[in-house]
Amino acid sequence: MIREIAEHRSHRRFRPDPIPAAVMSEMLEAAVRASNTGNMQAYSIVVTTDPELLQSLAPTHLNQPTAHAPAIITFCADVRRFSRWCELRGATPEYDNFVWFLGAMTDAVLASANLVLQAEAHGLGICYLGTTHYNAPEITEILRLPDSVIPVMALSCGYPATEVQLTDRLPLEAVVHSDVYREPSDAEIESFWAAREASPETAELLKANDLPTLARIFTERRYKGEDNRAFSRKYFDHLVEKGFFNQ
Amino acid sequence: MIREIAEHRSHRRFRPDPIPAAVMSEMLEAAVRASNTGNMQAYSIVVTTDPELLQSLAPTHLNQPTAHAPAIITFCADVRRFSRWCELRGATPEYDNFVWFLGAMTDAVLASANLVLQAEAHGLGICYLGTTHYNAPEITEILRLPDSVIPVMALSCGYPATEVQLTDRLPLEAVVHSDVYREPSDAEIESFWAAREASPETAELLKANDLPTLARIFTERRYKGEDNRAFSRKYFDHLVEKGFFNQ
Repeated sequence: MIREIAEHRSHRRFRPDPIPAAVMSEMLEAAVRASNTGNMQAYSIVVTTDPELLQSLAPTHLNQPTAHAPAIITFCADVRRFSRWCELRGATPEYDNFVWFLGAMTDAVLASANLVLQAEAHGLGICYLGTTHYNAPEITEILRLPDSVIPVMALSCGYPATEVQLTDRLPLEAVVHSDVYREPSDAEIESFWAAREASPETAELLKANDLPTLARIFTERRYKGEDNRAFSRKYFDHLVEKGFFNQ
Repeated sequence: MIREIAEHRSHRRFRPDPIPAAVMSEMLEAAVRASNTGNMQAYSIVVTTDPELLQSLAPTHLNQPTAHAPAIITFCADVRRFSRWCELRGATPEYDNFVWFLGAMTDAVLASANLVLQAEAHGLGICYLGTTHYNAPEITEILRLPDSVIPVMALSCGYPATEVQLTDRLPLEAVVHSDVYREPSDAEIESFWAAREASPETAELLKANDLPTLARIFTERRYKGEDNRAFSRKYFDHLVEKGFFNQ
């Protein structure tokens, strides 16, 4: 397997050392090699390394340890640059709608995947920040993103301060379907999670959280219904406000 | 640069040879190594190789040449399997909302990026099918995707039948911003597109389309406003119907 794919893991503690300019440049060149819709490159990549701006961004990523990194790289769906070029050329751009959000988000995420593997080829570590979907309006404000530009993913990046083990995955048959979707039985679903439920890490988590099942740690501690709904409304409102929902 | 990233291109004509099982297995193992939200793996990968099903899928991808491949691999946001596990463990899953669509879509797209690079390491070629966002309800029906599972990306895969050149990209400064977003001037935007506008390929396109600018080929031929809006409504309705918008 490609070494960087096989050895990929999330890093949450970084050394303060900056990322050399030549390395960052190669990471960005790798990012733009990714496939994208119509070769329109309807995305932007904001590389933030200024200490004050990093300090401002940290709370948008819930002040997690990994939010404190030498660089936060924010990937945005961006139909603004392309639309302006259209206007300058006598064309009428109509990319202010949901299908273009989906396309531009896909392209931005594919670019991020390339950037990450290239970073890891240089010994850097990263962590994807799902919090980007929680606090997009605040990120928009800090990074001064204009209309028609919305953050869809961010990651922290730096030289790892600690060793991190590879994390486990569900068995392949849990996520892969042949030809069409086949609904797993309850017994199969239980078997997919059996190894993780039986692990010493889970035993520790249950004790620390005073809960009887790992599933309840997800639903009652990590990703709670009321938070999920509030973040959903907040992101969707921002999407509309940014001009990605005129349909 | 990582070889597979540097040499990545889209392939639209494939030989009929099937993908060996061991190669497909390694591609899928690479896919699941990607980062994902909470290590919940809220996605599913449907690998379609049955000739009749491939025949049914081709129109959903607009019968493009690349829709005729030995395999179509469809990546879905899937909160169904995880939610059922929660129910079996006395937990109340509340992942039927937009922020989980965004997270699961991100994870599915990251998985696809790994799969693609690993496929290319074996001499296979792929093409991302943006049409997945146009005809998701039809894909859902053909692949028998239940509620809480929605297609977010698909790709065709096989051994390339023809040689394909690397495509160009905008200059890096068009998509990269330092620290915060900096609005390009009109002159800068024009400079970003200058090389592509001046190319012999563009000259041919203008002639074939009887249009005066490349931008108008995008807005009047390739991605038209009325289509964009119709596909936007269609995908969003499907998202609601599938149970990803209870907020």
